[in-house]
Order: sequence, then C-alpha cells, then structure tokens
Amino acid sequence: MRMYDLIQKKKRGDELTGEEIRYMIAGFTDGTIPDYQMSAMTMAICFQGMNSRETADLTLAMRDSGDVLDLSGIRGIKVDKHSTGGVGDKTSLALTPVIAALGVPVAKMSGRGLGHTGGTIDKLECFPGFTAEISGETFIRNVNETGIAIAGQTGNLAPADRKLYALRDVTGTVDSLPLIASSIMSKKLASGSDAIVLDVKTGNGAFMKELKDSRALAGAMVSIGTLAGKKTAAVITDMDQPLGYAVGNSLEVIEAIETLQGRGPEDFRQVVFALGSLMLQLGGRAADEKEAVAQMESVIADGRALEKFAQFIAAQGGDPAYVHDPGRLPLASRVIPVTATESGYVHRILAEEIGVACMMAGGGRETKESAIDLSVGIVLKKKNGDPVRAGETLALLYSNNAAKEEEICRKIRMAYETGPEKKEKTPVIHGYIL
Amino acid sequence: MRMYDLIQKKKRGDELTGEEIRYMIAGFTDGTIPDYQMSAMTMAICFQGMNSRETADLTLAMRDSGDVLDLSGIRGIKVDKHSTGGVGDKTSLALTPVIAALGVPVAKMSGRGLGHTGGTIDKLECFPGFTAEISGETFIRNVNETGIAIAGQTGNLAPADRKLYALRDVTGTVDSLPLIASSIMSKKLASGSDAIVLDVKTGNGAFMKELKDSRALAGAMVSIGTLAGKKTAAVITDMDQPLGYAVGNSLEVIEAIETLQGRGPEDFRQVVFALGSLMLQLGGRAADEKEAVAQMESVIADGRALEKFAQFIAAQGGDPAYVHDPGRLPLASRVIPVTATESGYVHRILAEEIGVACMMAGGGRETKESAIDLSVGIVLKKKNGDPVRAGETLALLYSNNAAKEEEICRKIRMAYETGPEKKEKTPVIHGYIL
Repeated sequence: MRMYDLIQKKKRGDELTGEEIRYMIAGFTDGTIPDYQMSAMTMAICFQGMNSRETADLTLAMRDSGDVLDLSGIRGIKVDKHSTGGVGDKTSLALTPVIAALGVPVAKMSGRGLGHTGGTIDKLECFPGFTAEISGETFIRNVNETGIAIAGQTGNLAPADRKLYALRDVTGTVDSLPLIASSIMSKKLASGSDAIVLDVKTGNGAFMKELKDSRALAGAMVSIGTLAGKKTAAVITDMDQPLGYAVGNSLEVIEAIETLQGRGPEDFRQVVFALGSLMLQLGGRAADEKEAVAQMESVIADGRALEKFAQFIAAQGGDPAYVHDPGRLPLASRVIPVTATESGYVHRILAEEIGVACMMAGGGRETKESAIDLSVGIVLKKKNGDPVRAGETLALLYSNNAAKEEEICRKIRMAYETGPEKKEKTPVIHGYIL
Repeated sequence: MRMYDLIQKKKRGDELTGEEIRYMIAGFTDGTIPDYQMSAMTMAICFQGMNSRETADLTLAMRDSGDVLDLSGIRGIKVDKHSTGGVGDKTSLALTPVIAALGVPVAKMSGRGLGHTGGTIDKLECFPGFTAEISGETFIRNVNETGIAIAGQTGNLAPADRKLYALRDVTGTVDSLPLIASSIMSKKLASGSDAIVLDVKTGNGAFMKELKDSRALAGAMVSIGTLAGKKTAAVITDMDQPLGYAVGNSLEVIEAIETLQGRGPEDFRQVVFALGSLMLQLGGRAADEKEAVAQMESVIADGRALEKFAQFIAAQGGDPAYVHDPGRLPLASRVIPVTATESGYVHRILAEEIGVACMMAGGGRETKESAIDLSVGIVLKKKNGDPVRAGETLALLYSNNAAKEEEICRKIRMAYETGPEKKEKTPVIHGYIL
C-alpha cells in the first residue's frame, strides 16, 4: 500500500477502505508518511469529502493511535459532554453539578482557552487552590466519592489527531466536516465514557455559522459515536451572540453560580437544561425531557446542585467558601461602560469580537504560552432583540489596563449590530440530533 | 503575507496576485515555506485551477528562481523545440540538422530518458566519443560554427520547478494543467532562446490522452510564452501508437538517419516537417508552410541535412563515420519476432507498453541511476490500420537477455489492440496553436 495511491484515490473522489485509512493514520503517526503527503490528502478531503463509513474509520484509527482510558472503576453510566466552542460558554460549570447531584457520574477531561474562546479549567482556577492536575487514581476516587472530577487532558489520547490538527491548522484544511467530526470524536471516544452528549453551536460566533452546516456536523458526530457503539446525542444551540451575559473567567464563574442558585440568564439556563436533559436520559436517570427538567429544577431549588459544586471544588483543592460567596472571586478594579451611539434594537452581537475583546483585556490567550488575567472580562447589558437608547450602556468592560481600554471598548461597540426596527430573536435551542 | 492565507485563497477559488505567486515561489525555493504547505497549495490548484495570468506569473517566478541563460553570443534567431514526451520520439535527431542546414541556429538543452520515454542525449551517445558535457563557451562556439549544439541540462535552471516537480510527483498533484504548463515553460524560458516551438503529444501514449486536454495544454503554453515576450507556437501530434517504427536508442538513431536520407517512416516525416515548418517561420527563414516544406525537402534531397548531422556529431567528439554508415551502430545480437495470434487489423498500439517493454529489455532507465543498453529495442512491423494475419510478425525485439524475452514479447503482443474490422487511422498532425 502506498500513500501516493491513496491520495490519488481520494483526489478522484473514490472511497478509501478501512484498511487504507488505518494504514494512513498509523504511518502519519509514526512519521513514515510525511507531512507533505498528509497535507495533500487533507486538501483532497476538503474538496471530495468522506462518507460516514470513512469518517467513522478515520475516527477509530485516530482513537486507536494512543491510549483509550479505562473508566470501569467508576460506578454508573458515565456520560461525557462536548461543546464545539463559543463565547461566554460556561456550561460545564453549571451543568456538571446539576447532573452529578442527580446521580450521573461526571468524569471529564477539559482544556484551557485559546484565542477568543475560554476554557473550563481556566475558569475553575478562579477558585484559589483548585487544580486540574490530578492523578488517574484521584480522578476515579473523586468521581466515586463526590460525583464529579474534571482533569486537564492527560495521557496520550489520540496523538494522531493532535498531529493532524496541527498540520491542518497551518495548511488551510481545518474546515472540512469529516475532519472536524473525526477530530472531536476521536478524543471523546478515547476518554472512556459510556455515552456522549454534544453541544454543537451555530451562528456568527460558532465555527459553523450556518444552521445547515451545524446540523450536518452534529449528524456526522452522532453517526460516528453510534457506529463506535456509544449512545450519542447532540443539541444545536445558538451562538449568534455570547451565551449569557458574562464573558471572562471570574465573571463567568459568578454567572454559573447564580444559575445554580436559580437566578441565571434565561438563554444559559435553556442550554444547561437541554444538555442536562439528554445526559440524564442517556445516563438512565430520567425517562423523558419532562422528568429530567423537573429533577434539575428540584436540585437547583433545594441547593443540592450548588452544594455538589462546592464539594467538587473542595475535592480538587479549591476553597469552597468562594462558591457560597462569589463576591470574593477576583474582579478587575476598573469597570468601563460601553455606550450606544444610536437608539434602536440589538440585531446581533458578534460573539467572536466580544471574545477577542476579552482576550485583548488579558482574559484569553493569544498563544498557548500566554498568561491570563482571570479577573477581567465583559458583562453584556443588552442582548439580541433588546431596545437600546443612544447613550445607554451596552456592556461593561472589566479592565486592569487603562491604556488599552479605548481600543477594546471600540471593539465591543463594533460587535453590537443595531437597527431601527425590532428584529425577532433567534431561538436558543435550534434542534436535537438523537 | 502568509502562505496560509494564499492556500485559503486558492482553496476558495480566488485568483492569486503576481506578488503572492512570487512570494510563494521564493519562499518555497529558499525553504521558508515548508513542503507541507506547498503540497496543500498544489492540491488546491488541482481542484481550483489557475487562470492564464496566474499561470504566466507562476512560470516567470519559477524561471527567475535560478539562472536565465544568455545566448546573445549566438548569431541569428534561436528557436528552441520541446516535446511533451512520447515513445519512439527521435524527432530532435532529424529535425535539428534540417533546420540548422537552413540557417536557423540550434542551441538546445536536452535530457536523458526516464521510465518509458527515451532521451535525446542517450541516443546521441550511440556515436562513440559523443559527449553532451560541453562548456558554455564550446556550446556557443559550436552553434556559431556548425549551426547545432546539444548539451545536457547545465547551470541552475529553474530550481523552483525542480523542487516543485519532485513534491508534486509524490503528492499526486502532477496532473494539473497550469502546473504542467508552467513547469515546462519555466525551463524553456530560462534556456535563453528567442522563440519556442512545442510538440504536444496526444493519445494513449501521451501524458494527455484526450485531444481536448492536449489542445488546452498547448494553448496554455503558447499563452505563457507569448505573455513572456517570446514567439511561441505548438503542434499537436499523435501518440496513439509509437512514432515511426523504431523504439530503442540505436534503432531510433538509424531511423532518424534514414529520414535524413529521405526514406524514413511517413508519420515521423510528417512530425519533423510540421515542427520544422514552424521553426523556420519563427526563425525568419520561411514565409509560410509551403516555402518551409520546399526548403526542408531540398536539404534532405541534396544531402546537406545529413552532412549537417555528421558535422554536429563530430563537433561534440563523436565519430561522423557512423552517420554515413549506420550499420556500424551497436545492435543487440538476438532478434525475436513477436507474432500475431489472430487475423484482423491493428486498432491501436499502447505506446507506453512498448516503451516499458524497451525499458525491460534494458533500453531505458527505471531510476535515474540505471545503466542502459543502447543496442536493444523494438522495431514495429505493423502499425495502426495495418492488416495482420495470424502468425505474422507484429514487431521484432532486439535483445541481449534471453531470460527476459518471453515476458517482454508478451508485453509487446498485449500492446497491440487488434480487431476484425478495419479502423480508420488517426491523423499524425492533430492541429496547430499559433
């Protein structure tokens, strides 16, 4: 078998066999297939695509390129959750205590933020003492004892995907549906859960801007998960504006805690409930959405979800006092209002621009090595569909750097698209793929 | 400027500017743009193409990546000739003495054979003592004194093309019209001639199997040459069977000499005359085809073309006695007939298979390092349209290796496609692009 022939085959639009795909991924991982052949292949895939069988084979080959975690030491049906990434997406912080409080074990790998999107682990590090660097033993013990553990990516999970993604990133071949779907799912399948719930974002701030593309990606990933023998479901959620009001690490933690206290933003609550409902059903804890929602409302109302969050923070070395008194979380000293220049209605908020503004304030990483300031960020005061008067505050910038504020405020103002006529809001939940 | 953005641009189907193409070729040549980005780009070009302006800019950028030869020391209008490659293509051997005898200076770079196609320099080395390794000074002096010099590729001509071709060769991106056209023309434009005549082959043994693709390639190359300020013309010639009867180094030299004696194969004579006619017109020696043909017939009839060939061989160290007595050229001792199994008519002869058969007999190189046997080859006894009876000889194999003969003869027999009905012959000359 020669990689040259496989490139030619895909270039002609022919289907690659499972054996061919495994040969390609094994050779690419061990370096016998050079980068320049793999980049020609990924470009050919961008043009010719892959069918669902090829995509599943690619995913499994990448999963099998490294370790597959063994979570059999954890009791119960482990349900993992993955988001395709958005701005203001603090979903894991509020969702995991809710479903853990209802008996679904959460054994989660998470990442740090890069570029305009935040990362769950950065947010958790707002709690003094918290660490995501825990051993495999501690990870499993914590899940069994408190119901939740969240660790940084450990072990050698899907190294083929890591290598392939790095190559796609510099060769303009990121935006291929089968390559995106297989990249996400290879890591998810390697991380050992029994079922997978996917949050596929759609809208201006999402990787997939069009609903039909988001639907196709969700469908591809659900198909891969199912072919790999895992119960898999997806929700398509809105990212035509940031999720909730808060963008920035401490600010988002505060908003997540408010949601666990039953007083979070409505759009954020809807996303948490949609994902939680699927997780409870796949985890065998609820028969249908109605039952799941009633259970989630109950653990929020009686404080069990918030208490579960505090237990989890404490179990990983963090100070649980901050969960009950989030006013102690670090917040930037300077709060600058961004005001509207014209009256009208908010049509949409360019989420990526808000994410970049947060990064410029120091709340996100430009490169993997950047240090971040957990105390800065943006609180939106107006969201899609809201009326706004000239001079009224659109958002507040939390900043520690006076020199950059003017530029960042300009960026935030530019992110707001307004017009004289009221425009119908897009729904928060665009659909389910089961 | 970033290569990443250029890849994205081409992937979307947008046009690259001249500045972008020059940046890309300069960076690729000096190694600052890695192979894996360039291979993604070439694959994107395979799908999205390049317009004639982009193709011309790519050609000029590759020409300018190395030396551009200065032939100003040679008197007269230098007309170069290039063939896209075929089997039995000994055109340069007969053509150059004819047009040199008519006063068009021939200052030609040639190559050696690789795979199923032969090379002019290998054929010339059938003359004992002949060398193509001559200095730049000797090259120019010989052209001025005898009218012809043929040298191996010297100097650092279009190194970007060499590097790019090597990459395309292993990444399945050879078959892109703008990449093929720019590769050929970058070298031609670097070799210093005033005008260029192209022999674009079409048919089963050609790189372009379909007439419309051959026409498109010819059109692209003529357009590039013209945009680069050189008079350029192309002839599309048939390669639906080998050219002439002889395939193999000494055998082809003998056939070329016979053609210079006025008794060569008709198809080969037509190709020589078509190309020669264009060269004489671009070289300012003939007003039209009729005049050019009359002149060529005259220098063949009176022996001046043959004499010019002998002078040229002598000037580069070869023994001119062999030109007048080609029976002295080395020929293999074993001559094996390949016979027909059924009666009927020859429909076509798979030229590439004949070329490969010659290579298997030792007459061509499998790799650049292979040694070759100049005395072996194949003489076709039947060509397209000829009637054939079962048991009759289709071709003769000249061999020095009894052990391989059975396999080679089988290959030659397989190359002959015959049928019961007479099939119309394809023309030798399919058209001109001026």
